[in-house]
Amino acid sequence: MALSRFPKFKFFNVTVPAQYVVQVEINRPEKLNAFFAPMWFELKGIFDVLSHDPEVRCILLSGAGDRAFTAGLDVEQAAKADNPFSSNFPDPSRKATVLRRHIFELQEVISAIARCEKPVIALLHGYTYGLGIDLSSACDLRFCTSDTKFCVKEVDIGLAADVGTLSRLPKVVGGVTSWVKDVCLSARPFSAEEALKNNFVSQVVDGGKAEVIQEGVKYAKYLSSKSPVAVQGTKNILDAAWGRTVEDNLNYTAVWNAAMVQSTDVQRAMLSGLQKRTPTFEKL
Amino acid sequence: MALSRFPKFKFFNVTVPAQYVVQVEINRPEKLNAFFAPMWFELKGIFDVLSHDPEVRCILLSGAGDRAFTAGLDVEQAAKADNPFSSNFPDPSRKATVLRRHIFELQEVISAIARCEKPVIALLHGYTYGLGIDLSSACDLRFCTSDTKFCVKEVDIGLAADVGTLSRLPKVVGGVTSWVKDVCLSARPFSAEEALKNNFVSQVVDGGKAEVIQEGVKYAKYLSSKSPVAVQGTKNILDAAWGRTVEDNLNYTAVWNAAMVQSTDVQRAMLSGLQKRTPTFEKL
Amino acid sequence: MALSRFPKFKFFNVTVPAQYVVQVEINRPEKLNAFFAPMWFELKGIFDVLSHDPEVRCILLSGAGDRAFTAGLDVEQAAKADNPFSSNFPDPSRKATVLRRHIFELQEVISAIARCEKPVIALLHGYTYGLGIDLSSACDLRFCTSDTKFCVKEVDIGLAADVGTLSRLPKVVGGVTSWVKDVCLSARPFSAEEALKNNFVSQVVDGGKAEVIQEGVKYAKYLSSKSPVAVQGTKNILDAAWGRTVEDNLNYTAVWNAAMVQSTDVQRAMLSGLQKRTPTFEKL
Amino acid sequence: MALSRFPKFKFFNVTVPAQYVVQVEINRPEKLNAFFAPMWFELKGIFDVLSHDPEVRCILLSGAGDRAFTAGLDVEQAAKADNPFSSNFPDPSRKATVLRRHIFELQEVISAIARCEKPVIALLHGYTYGLGIDLSSACDLRFCTSDTKFCVKEVDIGLAADVGTLSRLPKVVGGVTSWVKDVCLSARPFSAEEALKNNFVSQVVDGGKAEVIQEGVKYAKYLSSKSPVAVQGTKNILDAAWGRTVEDNLNYTAVWNAAMVQSTDVQRAMLSGLQKRTPTFEKL
Amino acid sequence: MALSRFPKFKFFNVTVPAQYVVQVEINRPEKLNAFFAPMWFELKGIFDVLSHDPEVRCILLSGAGDRAFTAGLDVEQAAKADNPFSSNFPDPSRKATVLRRHIFELQEVISAIARCEKPVIALLHGYTYGLGIDLSSACDLRFCTSDTKFCVKEVDIGLAADVGTLSRLPKVVGGVTSWVKDVCLSARPFSAEEALKNNFVSQVVDGGKAEVIQEGVKYAKYLSSKSPVAVQGTKNILDAAWGRTVEDNLNYTAVWNAAMVQSTDVQRAMLSGLQKRTPTFEKL
Amino acid sequence: MALSRFPKFKFFNVTVPAQYVVQVEINRPEKLNAFFAPMWFELKGIFDVLSHDPEVRCILLSGAGDRAFTAGLDVEQAAKADNPFSSNFPDPSRKATVLRRHIFELQEVISAIARCEKPVIALLHGYTYGLGIDLSSACDLRFCTSDTKFCVKEVDIGLAADVGTLSRLPKVVGGVTSWVKDVCLSARPFSAEEALKNNFVSQVVDGGKAEVIQEGVKYAKYLSSKSPVAVQGTKNILDAAWGRTVEDNLNYTAVWNAAMVQSTDVQRAMLSGLQKRTPTFEKL
Repeated sequence: MALSRFPKFKFFNVTVPAQYVVQVEINRPEKLNAFFAPMWFELKGIFDVLSHDPEVRCILLSGAGDRAFTAGLDVEQAAKADNPFSSNFPDPSRKATVLRRHIFELQEVISAIARCEKPVIALLHGYTYGLGIDLSSACDLRFCTSDTKFCVKEVDIGLAADVGTLSRLPKVVGGVTSWVKDVCLSARPFSAEEALKNNFVSQVVDGGKAEVIQEGVKYAKYLSSKSPVAVQGTKNILDAAWGRTVEDNLNYTAVWNAAMVQSTDVQRAMLSGLQKRTPTFEKL
Repeated sequence: MALSRFPKFKFFNVTVPAQYVVQVEINRPEKLNAFFAPMWFELKGIFDVLSHDPEVRCILLSGAGDRAFTAGLDVEQAAKADNPFSSNFPDPSRKATVLRRHIFELQEVISAIARCEKPVIALLHGYTYGLGIDLSSACDLRFCTSDTKFCVKEVDIGLAADVGTLSRLPKVVGGVTSWVKDVCLSARPFSAEEALKNNFVSQVVDGGKAEVIQEGVKYAKYLSSKSPVAVQGTKNILDAAWGRTVEDNLNYTAVWNAAMVQSTDVQRAMLSGLQKRTPTFEKL
Repeated sequence: MALSRFPKFKFFNVTVPAQYVVQVEINRPEKLNAFFAPMWFELKGIFDVLSHDPEVRCILLSGAGDRAFTAGLDVEQAAKADNPFSSNFPDPSRKATVLRRHIFELQEVISAIARCEKPVIALLHGYTYGLGIDLSSACDLRFCTSDTKFCVKEVDIGLAADVGTLSRLPKVVGGVTSWVKDVCLSARPFSAEEALKNNFVSQVVDGGKAEVIQEGVKYAKYLSSKSPVAVQGTKNILDAAWGRTVEDNLNYTAVWNAAMVQSTDVQRAMLSGLQKRTPTFEKL
Repeated sequence: MALSRFPKFKFFNVTVPAQYVVQVEINRPEKLNAFFAPMWFELKGIFDVLSHDPEVRCILLSGAGDRAFTAGLDVEQAAKADNPFSSNFPDPSRKATVLRRHIFELQEVISAIARCEKPVIALLHGYTYGLGIDLSSACDLRFCTSDTKFCVKEVDIGLAADVGTLSRLPKVVGGVTSWVKDVCLSARPFSAEEALKNNFVSQVVDGGKAEVIQEGVKYAKYLSSKSPVAVQGTKNILDAAWGRTVEDNLNYTAVWNAAMVQSTDVQRAMLSGLQKRTPTFEKL
Repeated sequence: MALSRFPKFKFFNVTVPAQYVVQVEINRPEKLNAFFAPMWFELKGIFDVLSHDPEVRCILLSGAGDRAFTAGLDVEQAAKADNPFSSNFPDPSRKATVLRRHIFELQEVISAIARCEKPVIALLHGYTYGLGIDLSSACDLRFCTSDTKFCVKEVDIGLAADVGTLSRLPKVVGGVTSWVKDVCLSARPFSAEEALKNNFVSQVVDGGKAEVIQEGVKYAKYLSSKSPVAVQGTKNILDAAWGRTVEDNLNYTAVWNAAMVQSTDVQRAMLSGLQKRTPTFEKL
Repeated sequence: MALSRFPKFKFFNVTVPAQYVVQVEINRPEKLNAFFAPMWFELKGIFDVLSHDPEVRCILLSGAGDRAFTAGLDVEQAAKADNPFSSNFPDPSRKATVLRRHIFELQEVISAIARCEKPVIALLHGYTYGLGIDLSSACDLRFCTSDTKFCVKEVDIGLAADVGTLSRLPKVVGGVTSWVKDVCLSARPFSAEEALKNNFVSQVVDGGKAEVIQEGVKYAKYLSSKSPVAVQGTKNILDAAWGRTVEDNLNYTAVWNAAMVQSTDVQRAMLSGLQKRTPTFEKL
């Protein structure tokens, strides 16, 4: 699809590779797609819009260039001049207040992905470091090339990861396993194969970045052919399973579905099943 | 064991393949063991009784015939005449109320398995679709033949799974992993091998249905030779671990065991251990 | 390091194999390192001190002798004379009260390891039975030799494990999986390979006990070279992920880091990174 | 209303004092409405039916005779012959199992009132002891005569209240206050005035039992004139507020109302408001 | 203070009646300060800014004109032309999706007040209906005139309150009391006196609107003279108490204060106390 | 009772005013019973012992001298020489770590009272400031003289209360009410009458300190005449109600009572009731 109906963004390419599928590409390849302040806010805005856009049923998140999904925070930029944290504070508690607000702000960007109503698939290649783990942990699925290099890098810059990795990695790979502790405490890089074995990615695609994008588009098209009421409800209810009891989750599911099974999708899906046709569904 | 002390059920064969072991077989093979209304209530009744029956220490849940554990909901029956959901409702909120009650009712059937005091082992073969996942996720262990075909089918009929899969699958395989999202969002079938790799089943038994039943009976006999106080307490406490904190679970465990270690089982088990004899335990 | 600055303990050898690294060795090899009353209290005292000792950044927990990490409770001792539980109680509720207090007391010992601010690595070999699972589940990482023999043994002595295994094993391997239910309900032994496959241990070290210790020391030295603010914060936040919602955990993380990123570690780590030097960090 | 469309129950009078209003009267006045086994099951059955009956919008729970709402458990009956708890058990853990099942069974009766979709108002007079507190704490509102005598009696029969009072009284009066601890620990009787002051009852009606019934019917008729979608949703959401976070409750509320504001009630209520007419609503 | 440093808002007057004190006045008196779409977004923007403004230590929320704090939603506007909910939807589940998004959007406005870092005091007079309860329940304190008329109005327009009242009123008055159920289920108006008796407002000020504003300003000045680190921390920690365990809240408190007691406020406050002087504190 | 069987403590008088009743008196009247380091540890030790002592059924906590229960922290001592917090730290994060440990340590002292198995009644008179609120909020009941002066003092020394008040006051008075926010944010003193009206104390005793002690002893004797199994179980279960759901609490209650109703107390209590005799109970 040559033209996108989306506006131009400064640091992200937003395109429509197939009907109902949107690809968001982090676009700062000359810096390994490392993040600095203005990128964050663009990213949140994009996902807030896609979440409610009825033309969108599945989102792909990828990185421009051959070398990285994202190398993480742009440390040079972070160290620069107008950094509010280098300024003088009357005391550590006041500095803590400003830092806490700043962390919340960044967490909200990542949470915009996690809260997006449509499934989001991270398509990973090359360096996927630090923030790259935060971002992809907030996605629903992760595909990667065999040469992807992962690293929960934060310990190496002297801090505990604070914008989502430590909260979402246990949810995404299942518990606070030996492996989660290992990669988070040591900040050691790990390979695609190790990511697959530990259930962080759901597939390692043969070939390079082009192939993983292709596979992502194919999967996204497949998901987009399904009932959007069913797909988006499934995402929402699964995410509510973590940190809550089975009993509370069952009750929540019943309340959710009491409205959502009143869709035309159920009839269409059943009928198409019996007639061996591909159903089409109204927008959502 | 030729004769069962259990009554005849219409849609389930309830037999006693070994002392303390009960096998519940879904018995509608001509319809791939698909479920329709009267089956649900029979099933709940059976598990409510087995839960408290002191002659029962382990339960096997399997499907009759060669082709399926269960193909899930009987969609044809569900689409039929006297379906309360086809009737007219004054407005969507009133329809939602009736639907919510109906979902709760079905959830209660599945929860009767999950709450059963005795360990329940699902023995799977052939089609294990939709409701087959709800049912087996509510069991404690899952064994399957190598030709079992799994599918979280609900998205394909236009709805989010609502009688237990989305609440229990994350508990049972560990978190809301890439794999859980993949199979729940896409409704794609998956194999026994994949189920094993992702910790949904604990073993794939070589051979066919007869072999998995045999293996199930063998395992159930083994569990039934253990202290029932120990086995049933272990099940109860493990299930409480999900969605609650370690601190709360430790406290609960201590309160539970304060009563339960006052059994005669502890002495018998220890003594038998020292004397290299097989202990016997009182009923529970 | 020949001399330890730690006092002599009766049942534990506490040594310093490398700077910032402390090894706690269970030292009752003639009894397969089985535990009895006086050992518990020593162990709690040791971990309470190490948790706050600024000279300590990583702790190794291992067992003396060639045959066992620990075979678990010393059943013979437990069965002996002055056992308070053999005394007469006016009624089962009063006995339950004394038992409950006793279970809490033992849980507190295991929890002292889990709550220790520094990462703790269990180095396992030989018999790792019963209490050995409780102890190692409370550690952050588990390495083992290929001949380690694991067993959640409690069902075999007639009780549900009550000092931590049932609460922490699901956290550590991810959920209440088929495998967790299998090994906890059946009390069947399992191998190092199985432990690795199910994410209970993060590596099986080639060779024997000497090699796993060597690997542990190497890993501990590596962790100790990292920012202790970052490492200890990561441990704390990850442990809070279990049984709580992502939203609560994100908020907790922000509050934690608002203080903790005000360390000198961040500057030192970043600068060293740019200068390709190894940073050193203040004690913590 | 002279005739009831409800069947005759042995221990309860179920009548219809006004359209949409049902009164359930505990009817064993010769024993101060004290409960014994067969009454429990009748009570559960009644509330399960009323919960879903579209002709019912508000339920009153009261006690027959002049002397008591209920004096609680019928201790004489409980002490009698065929009591399963006087039988011999092999050990205290097996007795505990049977007791636990029995407590769950009784809790389920009380919970049937708490889970009833329609608002339930307890109309109290005379002795409201023990079980009387369990029952009325499970209701939504409590009105009483000025001579009502309350008592959380269980401590006086040697046990902690276990069918609901200790779980629901804090919810109903707000926290584990000095007053809650006082009346629960001491088992001292308290007056209507004290119940009002501590927010247990919402009004003390002047006069005797007839007046409190009259007031209850009046209030129930008033509630029944309101939108049943609005009233029943309000009850459900308020009950979910206890023991959960504001954030979780807000999300649950939005999911609930997404279906429930699609009623015809909203238009009818608004229009009637503008036209100063009394709206009528479809059944629910 | 004659001039405000705040911009002009269309529906709110934002003024600075005293140092560190900001008053936000709902300004649509000709419509009893009833809310319609554009007002919501202005309100959220205002509180988001005030939350972080270091010149602000306490916020007052009041209503312009003599007759109302706010009469709630502007039902006429809500019923008007371009209402997205009157448009056609393919099915009730798609309408539910749009409604759910809309409810979340409105909840976020109210939550902006609840999450505001600075204490917010609602100053109430006249009609305080529907949304007026949602707004004031999200504040920290509520003062009112003796002629304030309160009403949880939503049931009267056919729906369960869904932007905060049902989640926050139980938190604010303590539990799901008889009184909370009464006023929420019946939508009956209640008086200032009743609001005081049930702990919804902390004082009823003698006189009219002018007096309650005066009292509010006086209290706000008093709070603003205290350490802002202490005041804002107290607000944050108290709000975290609801729906979480004491143990979790204690841990959170310790982590919070580890940073926040490193303020200069502690020294200044202590020294001023000893010297009987009024301390001044750095901005926050 | 002239002689106590308890050892002499330096800062506390521990006496036995009646059978089964122990009075712990804070004994530093010359400093208004203000706390400094050595007192904390003594206090924890005392409550840990009393919690398990079978001769103890009820505990009274009071302050020596005429002027104060306790004026709170001894600020002069806290400001003194060897204060670890005045020493130099490499950075605020390391100082935060030491502070966090210190706060946990003090919290554990207060929690020792809250966790004490026996009911604890705070008997308050004179200054009950700061720590006095933390201590008494951890008790089960609070009685006071009419001249007691209360104050949540911490805001006035520049910090949020961090050893328990903010976590337990909402539990104890019911929610995060207007009143809780008012007294915690403003640090304004409040009277006995206000404490009673807001459900913080359960009675204001006429007369002075002697009378409140007398009333406390009388109440404690009364509680001690009841079944200790029933009283201690009631305390435990009620405390678990806060921050957890009704469903979880009901389950916990059933598990607790399955052991605890197997006491001899039930028979004795019932029989004594029928025979109008005062029962005696075994120690616990």
